[in-house]
Amino acid sequence: MTAADAAEQQGRPWNRQRLRSTNERLLLDRLRAAGAASRAQLARETGLSKPTVSSALAALEAAGLVHEVGTHAPERGRTAVLYAPDPAAGHVLGVDVGRGWLRVAVADLDGAVVARSDVRNRARSSGAMADLVVSTARQVVAGSGVAPREVVHAVVGTPGVYDEKQRRVRYAMHLPGWGRAGLFDRMREELGVPLEVHNDANLAALGEYTYGVGAGSRLFAYILIGTGLGMGVVSEGRLFTGAHGLAGEIGFLPWPGQQKPERLEDAVSGVAVVEAARRFGMSGQLTAKAVFDAARQGNEAAVKAVQLEGERIAHTVAAAAAVLDPDLVVLGGGVGHSVDLLLKPVRDNLRALTPLRPKVVPSRLGEDAVLLGAVATALGTARDVVFERRSAAS
Amino acid sequence: MTAADAAEQQGRPWNRQRLRSTNERLLLDRLRAAGAASRAQLARETGLSKPTVSSALAALEAAGLVHEVGTHAPERGRTAVLYAPDPAAGHVLGVDVGRGWLRVAVADLDGAVVARSDVRNRARSSGAMADLVVSTARQVVAGSGVAPREVVHAVVGTPGVYDEKQRRVRYAMHLPGWGRAGLFDRMREELGVPLEVHNDANLAALGEYTYGVGAGSRLFAYILIGTGLGMGVVSEGRLFTGAHGLAGEIGFLPWPGQQKPERLEDAVSGVAVVEAARRFGMSGQLTAKAVFDAARQGNEAAVKAVQLEGERIAHTVAAAAAVLDPDLVVLGGGVGHSVDLLLKPVRDNLRALTPLRPKVVPSRLGEDAVLLGAVATALGTARDVVFERRSAAS
Repeated sequence: MTAADAAEQQGRPWNRQRLRSTNERLLLDRLRAAGAASRAQLARETGLSKPTVSSALAALEAAGLVHEVGTHAPERGRTAVLYAPDPAAGHVLGVDVGRGWLRVAVADLDGAVVARSDVRNRARSSGAMADLVVSTARQVVAGSGVAPREVVHAVVGTPGVYDEKQRRVRYAMHLPGWGRAGLFDRMREELGVPLEVHNDANLAALGEYTYGVGAGSRLFAYILIGTGLGMGVVSEGRLFTGAHGLAGEIGFLPWPGQQKPERLEDAVSGVAVVEAARRFGMSGQLTAKAVFDAARQGNEAAVKAVQLEGERIAHTVAAAAAVLDPDLVVLGGGVGHSVDLLLKPVRDNLRALTPLRPKVVPSRLGEDAVLLGAVATALGTARDVVFERRSAAS
Repeated sequence: MTAADAAEQQGRPWNRQRLRSTNERLLLDRLRAAGAASRAQLARETGLSKPTVSSALAALEAAGLVHEVGTHAPERGRTAVLYAPDPAAGHVLGVDVGRGWLRVAVADLDGAVVARSDVRNRARSSGAMADLVVSTARQVVAGSGVAPREVVHAVVGTPGVYDEKQRRVRYAMHLPGWGRAGLFDRMREELGVPLEVHNDANLAALGEYTYGVGAGSRLFAYILIGTGLGMGVVSEGRLFTGAHGLAGEIGFLPWPGQQKPERLEDAVSGVAVVEAARRFGMSGQLTAKAVFDAARQGNEAAVKAVQLEGERIAHTVAAAAAVLDPDLVVLGGGVGHSVDLLLKPVRDNLRALTPLRPKVVPSRLGEDAVLLGAVATALGTARDVVFERRSAAS
């Protein structure tokens, strides 16, 4: 399809300005997808004439959207200049709000993190937490050397489900008060950046799909096990969110051995690991990490607690397998992180539970999955915004 | 987009013959989607000139693809002839292979069933069952008055999952021998019709979406409860099949109260209802239907068996809700059919189990859902085949 066709299809009148802009966008997208290229290469691949490519590249360069990144000397013919998108043309903010930690990153348009901060979440109220997000984000931006107006889009990951209409979070069981109305509006206003909010497990799934082990999977499920329990599903490269954005709320799954009204979330989360270890005889000031460490040393009570955790995660994987048929299940989050210990009990229990056994692997991104998923999601919007803004200005 | 653009986009050289065919297809699709229309109406809606519409309609009529269905007399202006697709231009075969019943229908291109047969499945072997499918299909076609060569496509629904590579069914637990290689090849050959095979619950979901209560749902799940237990999922109008076509194999879900290695399928199917009723004190030659009938009369053991069935179906619905977030769950199949009795226990148990409670309703198509889903699926292909065949011939 030519640019003129594309413009027409979108119901816009054909005109020279629009056509120029469409060609520029075409070249920019090609450079983003397939890497640096010369004028001649771009002309060959896009079907545009060389003069059209030259003037479009000149305009993109003037707008600060592409830059020269080197030269290519072919065996025959002249040395050619190679162009690539300028990653510094704009930046995004990614935020991961967790019960234990708050993580904030600034990334350029290539997705490279240029500044980052991980702080303990010691906020005692939802208002204090919103303040912590704002102050940490400001510090990270200040430390990055990026001008605040160059940060064009922000994405926040949080437990629970964001209600677009009421602009507040629901089902965030482990963050008391976090469902209050107005919190995200306040963050938006104080940061002065358009800010989207998404479920943390969904972002982790997108992060793992974009930068981790999920790449190329047809249908993959990311199970986030930490303070809570959630699942993000990526189907053919797109997030699967269900009818109301609640897909993957697996903390509410019924499960074998359930003592009503106990939620699976409360039986699998880090706290449950600690409680199980106590029941099996461990004592002292325990954390999930301490239990896993003790299991590694062969502590019997800790080993039993890890076995039980593995069994319950296997129930979760078996349910996801029966309903969704994923080709890959990734375990991540604070507890999922101790996957070296969990993998065997999960796989053993799966074998006993069901003939449907997807591949189960640890997250490659570990604790960074939500944050990098937030960055990846913000980039989708930011690249459009930066192109519109800069090409309009030039 | 104009027809020439469309042809170009598909990488085909533009030529007069192709353009003509594309315009004819455009008009036929419009008539199929929005109903009978006059030449002037079609010209207005498609942007084609009146002479182009006239000659395309003439060609479609000559090919037997559209016919006149009446006239429209506007307040001002001339009376106009109305055209519609000719439903008799081709036919499809839909087949539902169940443990208890075999159902076969011949339908025209509008999806209207023109002949049908439901026979008890008394086959003792998979070979006998394949023979029964072939002989029943031949009888139904013969009885329909449709020439066998006018039946252009067939779709068969079966428990289990069809393996396209090995051309055989897997996981059809309740049809012994049905997984044998060569069975469907034999049916294809003997019927002389291209024949697709799909999971029965998936077809029931598509049937209920196309002709029943599923219409307009963003994400809906059809739970088929009968000899086995299966689920079909329709997401934004398309079947959701997972990475290997195994999505919705909910017979393998882990469930509260599970006595390993019992499958949920075996705890929810018709046989389980009978076994539960016996355990609660009923005796005699029981069927699931007999148990439901007795529960309707207030028989205490039967009422308890139905309660238990409702509880387990609620586990299934709760699992589907946590993983998929459907806006609608339809209960169907032989047991799902007794939904008048099951609906209350299912809803009551759901309330106790989970805050995620999709709307749960009975199937509108009842025992016909799989068969009508097979017809709907076959129509998708048949309409293309008939257009290609007839427009090439004329």
